[in-house]
Amino acid sequence: MKDALQKKIDLKIKPIGSLGKLEQIAHKIGLIQNSLSPELKNPTHLVFASDHGLADEGVSLYPKEVTFQMVMNFLSGGAAINVFCRQHNIHLKVVDAGVDYDFAEDLNLIHAKIARGTKNILQEPAMSMDVCTQAMNKGKDILTAEFNTGCNIISFGEMGIGNTSAASLLLHKYTGRSIIECTGRGTGHDDNGLNKKINILTQAAKKYNVNDPMEILATFGGLEIAMICGAMLQAKANKMVILVDGFITTAALLAAYQLDKSILDNCIFCHCSKENGHKYMLEYLGVEPLVNLDMCLGEGTGAVVTYPLIQSAVLFLNEMASFKNAGVANSSKTSN
Amino acid sequence: MKDALQKKIDLKIKPIGSLGKLEQIAHKIGLIQNSLSPELKNPTHLVFASDHGLADEGVSLYPKEVTFQMVMNFLSGGAAINVFCRQHNIHLKVVDAGVDYDFAEDLNLIHAKIARGTKNILQEPAMSMDVCTQAMNKGKDILTAEFNTGCNIISFGEMGIGNTSAASLLLHKYTGRSIIECTGRGTGHDDNGLNKKINILTQAAKKYNVNDPMEILATFGGLEIAMICGAMLQAKANKMVILVDGFITTAALLAAYQLDKSILDNCIFCHCSKENGHKYMLEYLGVEPLVNLDMCLGEGTGAVVTYPLIQSAVLFLNEMASFKNAGVANSSKTSN
Repeated sequence: MKDALQKKIDLKIKPIGSLGKLEQIAHKIGLIQNSLSPELKNPTHLVFASDHGLADEGVSLYPKEVTFQMVMNFLSGGAAINVFCRQHNIHLKVVDAGVDYDFAEDLNLIHAKIARGTKNILQEPAMSMDVCTQAMNKGKDILTAEFNTGCNIISFGEMGIGNTSAASLLLHKYTGRSIIECTGRGTGHDDNGLNKKINILTQAAKKYNVNDPMEILATFGGLEIAMICGAMLQAKANKMVILVDGFITTAALLAAYQLDKSILDNCIFCHCSKENGHKYMLEYLGVEPLVNLDMCLGEGTGAVVTYPLIQSAVLFLNEMASFKNAGVANSSKTSN
Repeated sequence: MKDALQKKIDLKIKPIGSLGKLEQIAHKIGLIQNSLSPELKNPTHLVFASDHGLADEGVSLYPKEVTFQMVMNFLSGGAAINVFCRQHNIHLKVVDAGVDYDFAEDLNLIHAKIARGTKNILQEPAMSMDVCTQAMNKGKDILTAEFNTGCNIISFGEMGIGNTSAASLLLHKYTGRSIIECTGRGTGHDDNGLNKKINILTQAAKKYNVNDPMEILATFGGLEIAMICGAMLQAKANKMVILVDGFITTAALLAAYQLDKSILDNCIFCHCSKENGHKYMLEYLGVEPLVNLDMCLGEGTGAVVTYPLIQSAVLFLNEMASFKNAGVANSSKTSN
């Protein structure tokens, strides 16, 4: 299949390699679907929201209530992710993974609350192993439900005041990078705020001596991160295309990667966040992002705005004419 | 307007600056249209095709007939640019600026042939000043016709065997960069082909001592390049958004820029081509491309595949909720 796909790409009526990264994506999606004519079906974007106990320490510039307020904003259609999903006809579903708020039952929300946020890791692990496993399994279930509607391409977003701190700690623990390298300005810290955040994360990192990948996820992660991790593993099992974007979402992938290295075969890395640690995550995974738009909004916006490029890759593979059927001279047949 | 636009962007329900380059594009389009709620109307992509006398010297890997064959491929819908314009509902129009072939009158083509290609510049200037001016004026007329249909955002593509040579010479003459820096592999030259091309372009560059921007365009340019140059100047006059992409199209912009430096106010640079000289053009103009997908296909594909990102910029500006109307706490109001 690998060679057959490359041959199909090379016979398209264009100079060899001239569609650059779009050719690599077309090739990758062909391999994932084991098809010379891959298709993108029912693209879906799942936004997982949850709260973080560490937010009580002031690691974020925003108050904790912003998590539930933003969920309400997603549901009313006014957030960036709503705009971009509407633009591209991507199904958007919002998941309450663990927001510290009681949502009304009748909201258009996937109710999957495991707890009202994680614990404050300066005091105890963010999650017990049991809670973390529950969250991962819930993520798998949610993914399976989407897969069963015919969806074969999935992307992830998140909302959770304090979750860049969790992602920084996961990056630190999984890769060995220093806390200073792993910690960024989140939603807009100045130097003072950043230093305070680094101090808190340094304390948290020192408090626990854990090495098992799952234990690291439970100790330092978040309910939304564990749920995305489970969903990603399930997407891989279902042979789906996984669009990866963002610092927190990639932290979830780091955890998934510890459990199944081959998950990278299904991942397309859409965008490199301006949040400092994201580039180190991509470097650790040995991957390059498709674009760099200096975004750092979260919600998975980087995946959704670049979705049309993924679509372009599949479309050229399926719709472009080939030299053999278009009556155009191929350079390989000519002398100069 | 500048400040009012920035204020509108900053009040959107997101951390300040977190939509990165999309914010800059939204701001720029707002300024071009002098509106807080800009709109993209009737996006249109014009592909100008023409032949080049220098192709007789073997500067391209492909034979000259490929120009008209590719025009026929555009008309039958099988080229990359067809696929991507269909994907994004962009009107695609193909212009015969000077192809060395007699197209049937009833083809769905804008018939604007000024001559059957340019002259071989190893023997005489590519165009007389009169021919070059005719081509520019024709470009202006074609642009005006699109503008009159309500189009306010335009992009350009080209097809012409030998036209990377013309673009390299224009880059050399307008910026003073060496022929070696300005010359690339075009549609796939190996080292021998590249050296041969460099030798021919060096001869051509030495043959003429011209300094006037228009005279440089006439001597070294192409009919499609002159026509695009005229169309760009007219788009600027019409206050339209100009999407710039590609080595040859940017060569046309280099010429337009000599005549009206303020044209940059209307330009969004979509993609940096893998063709060697393109980065020097962008550097000379002091601009950065939106994305870099390692593409070098021509036809303006880089502009068209990135069009959804331009659209995303305008949509977030128009559709996202603001802090004041969404009931979400703004960081500036909190102390933590």
